[in-house]
Amino acid sequence: MKAYFGRRYTISASHRLHADALSAEANLVTYGKCNNPHGHGHNYVVEVVVSGAVDPETGMVVNMAALDEVVRGRVIDRFDHANLNLDPLFVNRVPTTENLCRAVFVLLKNALPACELERVRVEETENNFFECDSE
Amino acid sequence: MKAYFGRRYTISASHRLHADALSAEANLVTYGKCNNPHGHGHNYVVEVVVSGAVDPETGMVVNMAALDEVVRGRVIDRFDHANLNLDPLFVNRVPTTENLCRAVFVLLKNALPACELERVRVEETENNFFECDSE
Amino acid sequence: MKAYFGRRYTISASHRLHADALSAEANLVTYGKCNNPHGHGHNYVVEVVVSGAVDPETGMVVNMAALDEVVRGRVIDRFDHANLNLDPLFVNRVPTTENLCRAVFVLLKNALPACELERVRVEETENNFFECDSE
Amino acid sequence: MKAYFGRRYTISASHRLHADALSAEANLVTYGKCNNPHGHGHNYVVEVVVSGAVDPETGMVVNMAALDEVVRGRVIDRFDHANLNLDPLFVNRVPTTENLCRAVFVLLKNALPACELERVRVEETENNFFECDSE
Amino acid sequence: MKAYFGRRYTISASHRLHADALSAEANLVTYGKCNNPHGHGHNYVVEVVVSGAVDPETGMVVNMAALDEVVRGRVIDRFDHANLNLDPLFVNRVPTTENLCRAVFVLLKNALPACELERVRVEETENNFFECDSE
Amino acid sequence: MKAYFGRRYTISASHRLHADALSAEANLVTYGKCNNPHGHGHNYVVEVVVSGAVDPETGMVVNMAALDEVVRGRVIDRFDHANLNLDPLFVNRVPTTENLCRAVFVLLKNALPACELERVRVEETENNFFECDSE
Repeated sequence: MKAYFGRRYTISASHRLHADALSAEANLVTYGKCNNPHGHGHNYVVEVVVSGAVDPETGMVVNMAALDEVVRGRVIDRFDHANLNLDPLFVNRVPTTENLCRAVFVLLKNALPACELERVRVEETENNFFECDSE
Repeated sequence: MKAYFGRRYTISASHRLHADALSAEANLVTYGKCNNPHGHGHNYVVEVVVSGAVDPETGMVVNMAALDEVVRGRVIDRFDHANLNLDPLFVNRVPTTENLCRAVFVLLKNALPACELERVRVEETENNFFECDSE
Repeated sequence: MKAYFGRRYTISASHRLHADALSAEANLVTYGKCNNPHGHGHNYVVEVVVSGAVDPETGMVVNMAALDEVVRGRVIDRFDHANLNLDPLFVNRVPTTENLCRAVFVLLKNALPACELERVRVEETENNFFECDSE
Repeated sequence: MKAYFGRRYTISASHRLHADALSAEANLVTYGKCNNPHGHGHNYVVEVVVSGAVDPETGMVVNMAALDEVVRGRVIDRFDHANLNLDPLFVNRVPTTENLCRAVFVLLKNALPACELERVRVEETENNFFECDSE
Repeated sequence: MKAYFGRRYTISASHRLHADALSAEANLVTYGKCNNPHGHGHNYVVEVVVSGAVDPETGMVVNMAALDEVVRGRVIDRFDHANLNLDPLFVNRVPTTENLCRAVFVLLKNALPACELERVRVEETENNFFECDSE
Repeated sequence: MKAYFGRRYTISASHRLHADALSAEANLVTYGKCNNPHGHGHNYVVEVVVSGAVDPETGMVVNMAALDEVVRGRVIDRFDHANLNLDPLFVNRVPTTENLCRAVFVLLKNALPACELERVRVEETENNFFECDSE
């Protein structure tokens, strides 16, 4: 029987939304106050959902400590307490939460221990979130 | 790559559950205290989930301000601080949260700016919720 | 040693804010959309905080089941799934959350089993709350 | 039109994670502090999601009181304020939250009143959860 | 009878913790990863608690819309979607959440409409908060 | 200016409420299902609130890492993933949450780095909590 396991992590980071290809006016229309020149920040909640068979011996889908090690090593240590705009992944890509969500998905996709990555969800505030999945 | 964007809104409204086609006894059995004659109320959380491609230039699935404008204009302004039983949509339909959820889905289905409506979720209390999707 | 015990209950109720002594215009200015003629509703969280010595034998400030019985009998059964404007306590008093909070305090003040009522808090939404205490 | 209804219940229970087939060292590596010999506990949130057509007369997917009666009778009364390791279902199965989630799914699968069981989710803490569905 | 009214606002801002009077090493020891050179950010929750007599006519401690106008004008518009280090108040003061909390208290202290400022609380994350009061 | 700093920790533990001085019947009346013979468990949230002057140089009431070290060393490592009934502090004292709260207060009272312990709060579930303070 297949089961899903979801785990939530928190990242405190700053970003500024600004697309170089757009004019100053278009940036302001597109991003509103998120375009403020000196940036702002969020406590992002990153939820990682994996799936797999429940091991009949251990009763587990994946070892949580092993999953944590990968997620911390590849995602949390990289983005937590950082300025997203300075990350190499966001040199030519606006650090919207959509793009952050995709970046987390790609960073984890083939790196997880013995389970499938189903979905990544990033909550930017209590009132909005973004998801991408394996489709 | 497709991504999902979810946004949460709050509606404070009152309603009374009562089906005209049922007897007084059947109404009481069906709805319990929700059938109390003078109504009661909730802080409903309405979660709207849309999907689309991430725009390579802006990094966004949909402009949040544009989405808010549609949802506020068609849903929030209509139901917030209102008595649901008096809404034209509920003249011949009991204002259960299932029906409120469907009504929100229909009101938004073809009205959104450049993205697909995937799912509407309405939380009636912290402990129960309703969803309908595009299937 | 004195200790405090707090317990949270939920009430789903409707109300309309309207002061008979004020003009229609003044009511609208004072209460905004809460003055809408047909009412609206909330899931109120009612938090009751009591204090007392910790009983050396049982290790308890108050028996939770005994407290629940009083609060349910005097407060929850009265206001849950009701229209506050129709309660005798609100015949000549606007059912604001301030006044609901005071009403709960007065209803419980001398009715609790072997402990002191310290404070009543009513959360109207996730973003606002009211409190009154024994001062 | 199909709709989904989700309802959340809480279970306070204790468990100890220990696989008889593994050595003491392997148990410690696999379960970490969850292998502590005298057990520990959680407030588990059990979310049951069902689906069905919305009844045109009542406006409901399922009668909530009827659903509660089944879930309380088959799941909550059994596991709440209990030591999971002593339940017959966990005699030869480690009471991980994966296995608890599957057990809840199986206990409810064919027992629900006039609706389909879609998904069971068990939240072990605020930061992790498990799900299984009808696939 | 005196009552308390609390209202919660959200600010998304970035900051970097660095004291000019301390060496680079001392800054790192004192602030840890909050000293990262390019800053990071949070969704701060700012809770403003006021007190006053309940107006017998309106049933209110303070008009919520009037309170919102002051808090938004003096606090939210100033710090939301901003880099705290660039605010004049933090030119010679490290923008710790303690200092942000004090700044909010001072900005509101004598500016509120017909009520007393009792307490300001700033939640930096779900797991820590700061408060200052009128003592 | 004095400020308060609160920090939340989580403990997953099991306990059984049973007073040796009471009869089996009295235990059942007093503790209800919390008297179940094999125990049950909770995710306790332990909130520690300290106060002090804001250091003009660092802008901090207390170094959070230093506070964490003391709380983890004296409280979290002791009670997390444990059976409270087996702790020496609960040999002759029922491990109610009142008594757990007092135990945490006493363990921390004179052990904190350069600040005052104001209050300890333990949340047993989302709907009840206990506090003790320095009075």
